[in-house]
Amino acid sequence: MNFRAVLYILGWVLNIDGAFMLLPFIVGLIYGESQGMAFLIMAIICLALGIGIVLHKPKDMTFYVREGFAATALSWIVLSIFGCIPFIINGDIPTFTNALFETASGFTTTGASILDDVEALSHASLFWRSFTHWIGGMGVLVFLLALLPMAGGSHMNIMRAESPGPSVDKLMPRVRQTALVLYSIYAALTALEFIFLILGKMPLFDAVATSVGTAGTGGFGIKNDSMGSYSPYIQWVVAVFMMLFGINFGFYFLLLKRKFKSAFSYQEVRNYIVVIVVACIIILISNAAKGMMTDMPFADKIRHVFFQVCSMLTTTGFSTLDYDTLWPATAHIVVIMLMLSGACAGSTGGGIKVSRITMLLQTVNKEVTLFFHPGRVVLIKNERKPVSHETLRSLNVFIMSYIAVFAISVFILSFDNRDFTTTFTSVLSALNNIGPGLSQAGPTECFSGISSLSKYIMIFDMLAGRLEIYPMLVLIMPEFWKNGFSKRSIY
Amino acid sequence: MNFRAVLYILGWVLNIDGAFMLLPFIVGLIYGESQGMAFLIMAIICLALGIGIVLHKPKDMTFYVREGFAATALSWIVLSIFGCIPFIINGDIPTFTNALFETASGFTTTGASILDDVEALSHASLFWRSFTHWIGGMGVLVFLLALLPMAGGSHMNIMRAESPGPSVDKLMPRVRQTALVLYSIYAALTALEFIFLILGKMPLFDAVATSVGTAGTGGFGIKNDSMGSYSPYIQWVVAVFMMLFGINFGFYFLLLKRKFKSAFSYQEVRNYIVVIVVACIIILISNAAKGMMTDMPFADKIRHVFFQVCSMLTTTGFSTLDYDTLWPATAHIVVIMLMLSGACAGSTGGGIKVSRITMLLQTVNKEVTLFFHPGRVVLIKNERKPVSHETLRSLNVFIMSYIAVFAISVFILSFDNRDFTTTFTSVLSALNNIGPGLSQAGPTECFSGISSLSKYIMIFDMLAGRLEIYPMLVLIMPEFWKNGFSKRSIY
Repeated sequence: MNFRAVLYILGWVLNIDGAFMLLPFIVGLIYGESQGMAFLIMAIICLALGIGIVLHKPKDMTFYVREGFAATALSWIVLSIFGCIPFIINGDIPTFTNALFETASGFTTTGASILDDVEALSHASLFWRSFTHWIGGMGVLVFLLALLPMAGGSHMNIMRAESPGPSVDKLMPRVRQTALVLYSIYAALTALEFIFLILGKMPLFDAVATSVGTAGTGGFGIKNDSMGSYSPYIQWVVAVFMMLFGINFGFYFLLLKRKFKSAFSYQEVRNYIVVIVVACIIILISNAAKGMMTDMPFADKIRHVFFQVCSMLTTTGFSTLDYDTLWPATAHIVVIMLMLSGACAGSTGGGIKVSRITMLLQTVNKEVTLFFHPGRVVLIKNERKPVSHETLRSLNVFIMSYIAVFAISVFILSFDNRDFTTTFTSVLSALNNIGPGLSQAGPTECFSGISSLSKYIMIFDMLAGRLEIYPMLVLIMPEFWKNGFSKRSIY
Repeated sequence: MNFRAVLYILGWVLNIDGAFMLLPFIVGLIYGESQGMAFLIMAIICLALGIGIVLHKPKDMTFYVREGFAATALSWIVLSIFGCIPFIINGDIPTFTNALFETASGFTTTGASILDDVEALSHASLFWRSFTHWIGGMGVLVFLLALLPMAGGSHMNIMRAESPGPSVDKLMPRVRQTALVLYSIYAALTALEFIFLILGKMPLFDAVATSVGTAGTGGFGIKNDSMGSYSPYIQWVVAVFMMLFGINFGFYFLLLKRKFKSAFSYQEVRNYIVVIVVACIIILISNAAKGMMTDMPFADKIRHVFFQVCSMLTTTGFSTLDYDTLWPATAHIVVIMLMLSGACAGSTGGGIKVSRITMLLQTVNKEVTLFFHPGRVVLIKNERKPVSHETLRSLNVFIMSYIAVFAISVFILSFDNRDFTTTFTSVLSALNNIGPGLSQAGPTECFSGISSLSKYIMIFDMLAGRLEIYPMLVLIMPEFWKNGFSKRSIY
C-alpha cells in the first residue's frame, strides 16, 4: 500500500476541513457567540497539520483500488474526528462519543441526532452541524479532485470509492472536470433552494442551514420539530428540492447540455418518480382506510405525505409530522421500503439505490422468463445498456455484505434491549443515512439514550452506508494492514 | 404442458390423502367420537375421485421441470383443500378459510394455528392436525415415488421440486429407491421418538401426536401451552428429536451404511451443530445480562433455551415457555436469525437452510479475498465440492425471490394494522414454516384475529416456503397457463 500517497490525501482533507471551519467561526462572529471561537482554534490546528503534511508531496501518487479505499475510508474518519472537536471545546456537545456521533451523522448525511433540544445550540454549532451535510453530500474527495490537479495514477479509483451507486458516470473525459461539473451543479441547486426559501420569508440563517441540509440529503433540523413549524410554502420548497437532490446528477448535466431527450430517457429517474407517486398514493389510501389524518384538508395531506415520501426515499430525514404515531402500519411498511430503496445512483442520497433495486428485480424476472422460454436470451439492463456479469456479481455481493453488516449491527444494538422495530429501524436509518426510524427511533425521538457501544456501531454503519460498505469493511480486516508498503494491486 | 400426467399424479395424491384419512377415523372410533365420521366420508370421496382418475393412466408420463413444478404445487393445494373439509363437516373448525389455514399450516409443517383453544378439539381432529405434519414433512410426492413404480421420464424433476435445499442428494441410483430409503429413515426415527416418549410416561395419544409433529418439524401442539406442561424428560426428548429431524437425511443414510467418517464430515451438519451451540450460549448470556429467568435452576434454563433454539432453527415451532415476553431483545434477534436460517437441506425442516447461508457467506468472503489477492482462485464450496456457477446464480435468485415474496406479504399483512414486529414475524413464520413469531404472533397467541386476506397470503407463503418459492411463484404467472398442452421444456 502506498501509505505516503494516502497520507498526502489526508493532509488535504484536513486543509479542507480547517478551511470550512472558518465559516461557523464567521457565523459565531455575526451572532456575537463565544462558541464560534472553538471553530477558529480547530481550523488553525487542522490547517497547521494539513499544510505540514502536504508540503512534502510524495513522488509516487499512483492510486490503485486499495489506496482509493484506504484514502476514502480514512478521510471520512479523520473528517469526523477533527470535525467533532469544536463541539467538545465550546461545550455544545460535551462528550466525545456524542460529538463524534453527531458529526459522523452530519458528514455521512444521515441526520440522526443525540440532541434532544437542538434549539439550545449556538448558531455557530448549528451552522457547522448542517454544513457538514453539504460537505458530505457530494463527497470531500470529489471536492478535492475538483480542486487539485493530480497528475498520474487513476484518480477514478478515489472517485469510485466515494460516489454512491453501482457505477460512476464519467460525465467528462477527465476526472477533475467531472468533479468540477458535479460540484457546480450541486452549488447552483443549493443556491436555487436558498433563493426559493428566502422568497418564502424564511429567516436568513434558517434558509442557509435548510438548503445545505437538503442539498446533502442530510436531515439535521435547526428546530426541535424539524420542518413542522414552517409555512406550507417552505415545506413544499424543501420537499421538491429533496426530490431534486435525489436525482442522478447526470440528468442535470444532460439538461445543461440541452440534451433534453437523453435526460428524460434516464430510466432510473423515471423509476424514481414512479416510486414517489406510487408511495404517496398508497400512504394516502392507507391513512384514509384507517381513518387517520381525517381532520386535515386534502391539500395538507398531500403536502405531508409528499414531504415524508421524498424525505425517506432520498434518505434526508426531515419531517413535518410524527408519522410514527400518526400513520397506520401499511404506511410504516411503505416508509421502511422507501428507506431501504434510497434515491438514484449519482445523487447525494443514500440507501441501496433505485438502479440496484431495478437490477435485482430484473434478475428475478430473468429466471422466471428463462423458466418459460429456456432458449431466450434475457439481458439485465441498466440505462438501456446490458449489465456485465462482473457488475451483477458485485451487485449480489454488495447486497450480501449489506445484509451481513445489517444483521451484526442489529444483533449488537439489541443489547440495549429496546423493541425490535426500534432496533431494526435504527440500523436501517444509520446504514442508509436517513436519520429517524420508527418507534423509539421515530422522528420525534433522539439517540441520546442508547449505549456508547450502540453509538459506535451506528457511527460505523453511517460511514459504511455512505461509502457503500466496502471501504469500511476492508478497513477492519487485519489483512488490509498486513501486506506492508510495497504490495499493490489493480483490482 | 402434459396436463394428463399432472392430473394422474393428482389422482394418486387424492388416494393417499383418502387412505391416510382412515387413521383419524379409527382414532375417532377408539374414542367413540362422532367427529371421526367426517374423516370416513371424506376418505371415501377422495378415494372415489382418486381411483376414478388413476384408472386411466396416460401413455406419456414424461415429467419435465414444468410438469414437476405444476404437479408439486397443485398436489399441495389439492392436499390442503381436501384435507381441510373434515374439519368443516365435523364442526371442529367451522369456516373454510380457517380450516384451510390450519390444514395448509399442517401439511407445510408450519404449525401456525387459528385455534385459541386446541384442547377443545376432538381426538380425531387433533390426530389429523398433527398427522398432516408427518405427511408434509418428507413430502407427499416423495411418498408417491416410493410407492409407485413409474416407468419413463425423469421423476427427479418431481423429487427436486418438492425436496428442500439447493440440491437433492441422490442417495441411491434410482429415484424410487432414494424415496424408499428416505421414508424408511423417517418412519424409523419417528418410531424411536415415540418409544422414548412412552418410556417417559407420556400418554399414548400425546406420544403419537407429538412424535409425528416433531418428525415433520411441524409444531402443532395438542395442549394450549404447547409442550410447557410436560415433564423435563419429555421436553428433552422432543428437543433432541427436533434437532435430529433437522439434520440432512443423507447423514443417517451414511450412518446406516457404516460410513461413519463420511457421515461426520458433513459440513452442513457440523455448521448446524455449531449454530445450535452458539445460539444457546448467546441466549443464556443475554438472559443473564438482563436479569431474566433468574429464579430458575441452571439445568432448567439450559433445557428451555436448547428446546427453543432447536424448535426455531428446525422451524418446528413447539415451545416450553413464552420467550416473547420472558426473553430480552438480543435473544429475540437470535430467535429471528434462527428462524431465517432454518435447518439442513435434505431434512424435514424449512427456512433458507444452513447450506445456503454458508454459501452466501462464502460469496462475501470470496470478494474480500479477491480484493486482497486479485489473482487467487477462490472456489465456493458445498460439502467440499465446488459449487457450479449455475447453482450460485439460482441461489442468488432464490434469495431475491424470497425477499420479493417476503416484502409483498409484509405489505399486504400490514393492512391489519398490527405492529411491525408482529407483521414481520408472521410472514417470516409462514414463509419459513415455523409457526409462532414474536409480539402478537408470539407462542401464546394464535392467528384467528387476522383478516381473511392475511390468512390467504399466509397460506400462499406457507406453501411457497415449503416448496421453496418457485413452484408456487410460477403457478400464479399467467404465462404458466398460456402455452397450451403441447409445449414442453427441459430446463
